[in-house]
Amino acid sequence: MTKQIAILGSTGSIGKNALRVIDSLGPEYKIVALSAHSKVELLAEQARRYKPKFVAITNSDYAEQLREFLGDLDIEILVGPEGLIEIAELQEMDILLTAVVGAAGLPAVLAAGRKGKRLAIANKEPLVIAGELLRKEIEKNGGVILPVDSEHSAVFQAMQSGSKEQVNKIILTASGGPFRQATAEDILNVTLEQALAHPVWDMGPKITIDSATMMNKAFEIIEARWLFDISVEKIEVLIHPESIVHSIVEFVDGSMIAQLGEPDMCLPIQYALTYPERVAGIARALRLEEIGTLTFEKPNLQTFRALSLGYEVARTGGTAPVVFNAANEAAVEGFLASRIKFVNIVEIIENCLNRHNVKPTVSLEDVLEADAWARREVTELACSV
Amino acid sequence: MTKQIAILGSTGSIGKNALRVIDSLGPEYKIVALSAHSKVELLAEQARRYKPKFVAITNSDYAEQLREFLGDLDIEILVGPEGLIEIAELQEMDILLTAVVGAAGLPAVLAAGRKGKRLAIANKEPLVIAGELLRKEIEKNGGVILPVDSEHSAVFQAMQSGSKEQVNKIILTASGGPFRQATAEDILNVTLEQALAHPVWDMGPKITIDSATMMNKAFEIIEARWLFDISVEKIEVLIHPESIVHSIVEFVDGSMIAQLGEPDMCLPIQYALTYPERVAGIARALRLEEIGTLTFEKPNLQTFRALSLGYEVARTGGTAPVVFNAANEAAVEGFLASRIKFVNIVEIIENCLNRHNVKPTVSLEDVLEADAWARREVTELACSV
Repeated sequence: MTKQIAILGSTGSIGKNALRVIDSLGPEYKIVALSAHSKVELLAEQARRYKPKFVAITNSDYAEQLREFLGDLDIEILVGPEGLIEIAELQEMDILLTAVVGAAGLPAVLAAGRKGKRLAIANKEPLVIAGELLRKEIEKNGGVILPVDSEHSAVFQAMQSGSKEQVNKIILTASGGPFRQATAEDILNVTLEQALAHPVWDMGPKITIDSATMMNKAFEIIEARWLFDISVEKIEVLIHPESIVHSIVEFVDGSMIAQLGEPDMCLPIQYALTYPERVAGIARALRLEEIGTLTFEKPNLQTFRALSLGYEVARTGGTAPVVFNAANEAAVEGFLASRIKFVNIVEIIENCLNRHNVKPTVSLEDVLEADAWARREVTELACSV
Repeated sequence: MTKQIAILGSTGSIGKNALRVIDSLGPEYKIVALSAHSKVELLAEQARRYKPKFVAITNSDYAEQLREFLGDLDIEILVGPEGLIEIAELQEMDILLTAVVGAAGLPAVLAAGRKGKRLAIANKEPLVIAGELLRKEIEKNGGVILPVDSEHSAVFQAMQSGSKEQVNKIILTASGGPFRQATAEDILNVTLEQALAHPVWDMGPKITIDSATMMNKAFEIIEARWLFDISVEKIEVLIHPESIVHSIVEFVDGSMIAQLGEPDMCLPIQYALTYPERVAGIARALRLEEIGTLTFEKPNLQTFRALSLGYEVARTGGTAPVVFNAANEAAVEGFLASRIKFVNIVEIIENCLNRHNVKPTVSLEDVLEADAWARREVTELACSV
C-alpha cells in the first residue's frame, strides 16, 4: 500500500537524508508535501523532482521566488508557519516527518497528533517542550510517534523484545562529545572551534554545541520520558565514545537488548517510515570486527552539569523543559556569536531556570509563553555575564 | 495460569539452575517430573523438595536405591531411558526442559515435539544431530522450541525486533576459549589442564573441551540453522572474549540487535520458561560501565579448524552432523582419558567425516545408526594416532 509522506524541513540534513531513503524505498513511498524555511532554491529543486501536491515556505520573504521557480508545475504553494499546519492536517498524508529546528514545527506536530497521524520526529523540541501535550493528543487520537533520533530509535527497536511494562531501565548512550575527558576546569577555557569539533557525528552547529555541553543528552532524557511514557528514574546515560551501540533497554529479568549500527541517520529515518517492516536500505552495514573495541563509562556529572539539570527538569515537568530548551537555544546563539563563553551556556540556563516559576503546560500557549519568557531572560542574563 | 514443567537432567548444572529459577518464579511454575542418570541421592532430595508426580532414573542400577529413598512419597518412579519418553508425553506437562548430555535425551525430545509441547532445549545434541527431524515434528504439531543456550537465547530475543524474513545475518559470539590467541603451532602442545581452564564460563569438562576446540561453536552453527530455519550462509561467528554480548541479529535494513547480560545461565533458562513474558528474576543485572570494554575480532580459522568443519557439516546435512557430534564425543572422551592429544580431537573428527557416506536422516534410527558408526570408527582411529 502506498504511503504518503510529508517532510517538514526537507532542505536540512535530516530532510535530505530522508529523501535519499525514500528514493531507495521505491514507488510505494510517495512525497505529498515538502517544506523549508528559506532555502528556496533547494526546495524548488526538490519539488521539481518529487512533484509533491504541496510545498510550504515558512519565511514569506521567499514566497514570490518560490512561485516563480515552480510556476509551471501543478503544486500548491503555502506560505508562512500556517503552511506547516495545513500540511500536518492533510487527509491524504500518512506520515509526517518533522525536522524543523527549534519550536517552529511544534504547532504542526500537535495538529498532526490531533489527526491521529504517524509522526516521525527528528528534532528534539516537540517532545522536550511539549512532550506531555503531545503524548495526550497521541493517546486520545490513536496516533503513533516513531523516533528518528538514533538513540530513541534504538530504544524503540530494543523495546520490541519485551513489553513496556517489562522495561527496567532505558540506557541512552552518549559519545561524550569533544570534552568527554575534560575536567570542570578545562571547560572554562573552551574555544568555539574546539566546541564545534565533534568526534563522531557530522551535524549542524547548534546540535554540535548541544553535544559538547551534553545538553542534547539532557534533552534526550526528557524526550525518552514522554516518548516511552517512562519515569525519569528509569532513564540512565552511559558514555560510549564509539557511538556504535545507539542505546540499550534493560528488562526486568536482567536481559539487555541493544541496537547497534554505523552512525548513519538513514537507518532510523528509514525505520520510522517502514515500521513495523524492515526492508533493505541504504544504511551501511556494521562490521564489528573492524570496529574492534567498544567502551562504556559513567558520565562525569561535574563536567557535565547539563545532565543533572536535565534530570531535575524532567522530574519537574510543566514549563521547566520549555525554559530549559529556550534558554539553551538563546545561550548557544550567544556562544556561536562569541558573545558569551562556552561555560556560560549552562550557567545561564541554570540561572534562567532558577528565576522561572514553573506552571503546567495545558495548552500550546503555555509553552509559547514560557519559551518567549526564557529567551528574553537569557538576553538579559547574557548581557550581565 | 499454572505451568507444569518437566526437567530431564535435573541433577546437572543446568537442571540445578533451572530449579533455582523456578524457586524464584513462585507458585505459578510447578515441577511435574524430574530425571537423572545416576545421581540418585540428589535426585531423591530434589523429589522430596518439589514433589513431582514422576521421577525417572535412566541408569537402572540405581532404581532400587531411588525406590527406597522415596518409598514414603506418592511419586511414580520410572526406570531406564523409556522413562524420559513417558515424561515427554505427559498430558499435563506444558514445558519440557531438557539438559541431558549426549544423544540420550533425543527420543524424549522428539516425542515431546510430536505432542506439540514447548521444548526448552539446553543441550546441543537434539538440534545438532536431529535438527531436521525435530524441526519437522515441531512444524507439523504446532510445538515451539525455546533455546536455553545463551547464544541462541540471545538470537531468539533479538529476532523479536523484526521478523524471520527480515533477518540478514545471525552473528554468534564466541569467547574464543583459552586458545583464542594461540597459533596452529601452539595447539600442538596443549595439555589437558590448559584445555580445561576456560576463561569465562564455569562448565563441565566435556563442554569446556568443546569450547577450547571451538567445536561448541561449530555445533551452535548447526543448532542455529535448524532452530531458526535459516541458511548456513547467514550464520557468522564473531570472537568476543568478554562474553557479554551473547549474540547479535543483523536485519536487512542494516540494524543490529544484540542481547547482553552477565554470563549467567539463569537468564536464558528463565526466559525459555516465561516467554513471551519477562519477569524479575535471579539473574544479576549487568553494569556496562563496570565492564568498560567489549572487544570483537574475526575467528582464526587456521587455529580453529573445527569452525570450518562446522560450516561444511551444516551445509551437508543428513547424517554428517550426527557423525560430527558422535566423533567429537568419542574423541573428547579419549582426550580426557589422556589417550589422545588435544590436536588429535579435530583431526579424528575430520578423518571420521571423510570416511562417512552421508545419508538423509528420515527417522531416529538413521540418526542412531550413524551415531554408533562414528563411535566405533573413532575407537579405531584413536588407536592409530
